[in-house]
Amino acid sequence: MYLLNGESKHCVDVSDRGFQYGDGLFETIEILNGKPLFLSSHLDRLLAGCERLLIPPPDRKILTQEARRMSSEVDHAVLKLMVTRGSGGRGYRQPAAIHPTRLFSRHPYPQYPETLQNQGVAVRFCRNRLGLNPTLAGIKHMNRLEQILARAEWRDDDIQEGLMLSHEGYVIEGTMSNVFYVKDQRLISAPVERCGVAGIVRSLIFNLADQHAIEARQDYFLPEQLLQADEIFLTNSIIGIWPVNKLEQQAFTIGPLTKKLQTAYQQLKQREAQHD
Amino acid sequence: MYLLNGESKHCVDVSDRGFQYGDGLFETIEILNGKPLFLSSHLDRLLAGCERLLIPPPDRKILTQEARRMSSEVDHAVLKLMVTRGSGGRGYRQPAAIHPTRLFSRHPYPQYPETLQNQGVAVRFCRNRLGLNPTLAGIKHMNRLEQILARAEWRDDDIQEGLMLSHEGYVIEGTMSNVFYVKDQRLISAPVERCGVAGIVRSLIFNLADQHAIEARQDYFLPEQLLQADEIFLTNSIIGIWPVNKLEQQAFTIGPLTKKLQTAYQQLKQREAQHD
Repeated sequence: MYLLNGESKHCVDVSDRGFQYGDGLFETIEILNGKPLFLSSHLDRLLAGCERLLIPPPDRKILTQEARRMSSEVDHAVLKLMVTRGSGGRGYRQPAAIHPTRLFSRHPYPQYPETLQNQGVAVRFCRNRLGLNPTLAGIKHMNRLEQILARAEWRDDDIQEGLMLSHEGYVIEGTMSNVFYVKDQRLISAPVERCGVAGIVRSLIFNLADQHAIEARQDYFLPEQLLQADEIFLTNSIIGIWPVNKLEQQAFTIGPLTKKLQTAYQQLKQREAQHD
Repeated sequence: MYLLNGESKHCVDVSDRGFQYGDGLFETIEILNGKPLFLSSHLDRLLAGCERLLIPPPDRKILTQEARRMSSEVDHAVLKLMVTRGSGGRGYRQPAAIHPTRLFSRHPYPQYPETLQNQGVAVRFCRNRLGLNPTLAGIKHMNRLEQILARAEWRDDDIQEGLMLSHEGYVIEGTMSNVFYVKDQRLISAPVERCGVAGIVRSLIFNLADQHAIEARQDYFLPEQLLQADEIFLTNSIIGIWPVNKLEQQAFTIGPLTKKLQTAYQQLKQREAQHD
């Protein structure tokens, strides 16, 4: 199901700058029990992204209504929201009057085996790196060739995710997820000020850590440091929290902090799904 | 006029990865006297880009036929060719079978005043920088947010172009052009191995310099060095060669090497337009 500027269409004019240049933003939202989860946080990030890219923000009320309409009476699915700068302008130059395109699309929830949550996933390091760009860092923009090339580095279905380093060599995130590790009871994830995406679940995890008195901080770390971790896990809005059981050749166990945060996140999701 | 996978359409399915992620490539070609100029060089770069992005290359013969069809009986115009990875795949992961989308679109030739060629243009330095990515460097891919943000830095119509630095601080190119400078009879342009686009005219200029016994090389340079130049000019497939008469607050004259290359490039274009 699709909703393109409020109409049931799934064909966009090729002049749309989203198609021409990747000139836009997106959000990927879990629908549960007829509700788009953490919609408010997703819209916050989207509208912050609009500000960063100088796209006039679409009306938040309309986005909220349309997101609810796309989710109502849907048990479990994925909702994708895209906002582009629309058509017009001369080359890279923006048009004088910007009329953003907004698109909602609904997709089946991916058939991930339960074991990924319970027994963890195998991950690898990618050779493709993230270029540094403070203006684009943190937001979920539509220029995703770096992630596509990194995801193309492996075909082995037993490896669920690849970790990407910044141009300088720090571990920043997975191709489609944020990465956390635990060392000596402390939880660490990389800053996303120079590259990377400020994940919605990533930010919820920092909140949950605070509520559960888990010491947590943002800090840069190297692959060698990650290999010395006590626990590692991945987060995004669709997978939730996936523990890592293997990184390259090294095995990891699913530790107590990961399990505690998984339980807390599940509870948060259930409350969010029931909340009106 | 549009040609989408051989059909006269200008609406693309929103599932196309070109729209979803900027997952594709493009070429901007000058049509003159019914002929797409330097088509062979454009297709070389496009197909090299396909190889780099792991997109199965469209049939070169079909691209050539369609480009000629779009250009025939057209006096002067701009032809844009886009190739995307098509639809499918799961998130960033490519589909098992890739069916690329190819799109030709024809646009009026921009109404640039003659004075830009003859008297030169004013340019500035941009604050937005180019992230480093050797896999994406050189090719003309559809992830263009860096250029869009750089182009959004000024609105003054008297400034025709903005120069972008690499993350490390070297001058690499304009938002839509390559940049050359002359110092002590030597012609210099930045390498495009870590960021930037390997322009078709840029490469023709290096050939012409060789033919005219002008010493030319690729080398990194800083803004301070560019401000000390004897001559500066910009190139792309639509503007040809624009001399720079002002960079920030500093004036430049249109020098002998720039004029010699402008004449040589015009002759090359005329030969190309007549050639069958």
